[in-house]
Amino acid sequence: METIIGIAAGILTSISMLPQLIKILKEKDVENISPYMITILLSGVSLWVVYGVMLGEWPIILSNAFSVFVNVTLLICYFLFSKNS
Amino acid sequence: METIIGIAAGILTSISMLPQLIKILKEKDVENISPYMITILLSGVSLWVVYGVMLGEWPIILSNAFSVFVNVTLLICYFLFSKNS
Repeated sequence: METIIGIAAGILTSISMLPQLIKILKEKDVENISPYMITILLSGVSLWVVYGVMLGEWPIILSNAFSVFVNVTLLICYFLFSKNS
Repeated sequence: METIIGIAAGILTSISMLPQLIKILKEKDVENISPYMITILLSGVSLWVVYGVMLGEWPIILSNAFSVFVNVTLLICYFLFSKNS
């Protein structure tokens, strides 16, 4: 039971940035997005990947590698679409 | 060593939404924020709290309870500051 809750929690937190990325790609506007949020989150999920590799835990590695990918894309979009604001 | 990496990763992912919240509170504008991001993330971190309670793991409970608090505040701000967009 804990495992199911853990997997569900992991999937939800991993995919949560996806609608934000889609919204930015559609609107090409990042005015209200905090770049600190993206960079801190990116550092965090990168460390989770390192942690997963150390423990050899594939669910931790995969879900966080996915988050790294989404957040790197978010960061690229941020720099592409920010108007020096 | 894994524990240190895990704690650092947990702290970073927990505090990542804080600069976003501060930015919204300052600008009172949420036009580019995805409400789906907030609600999915809120469901995810809430499940992590349940998971932590099931395992009796205080670091999981505390870091995610903090995220629940930040995300609930974000969601309230979203509804306060959204202009029916």
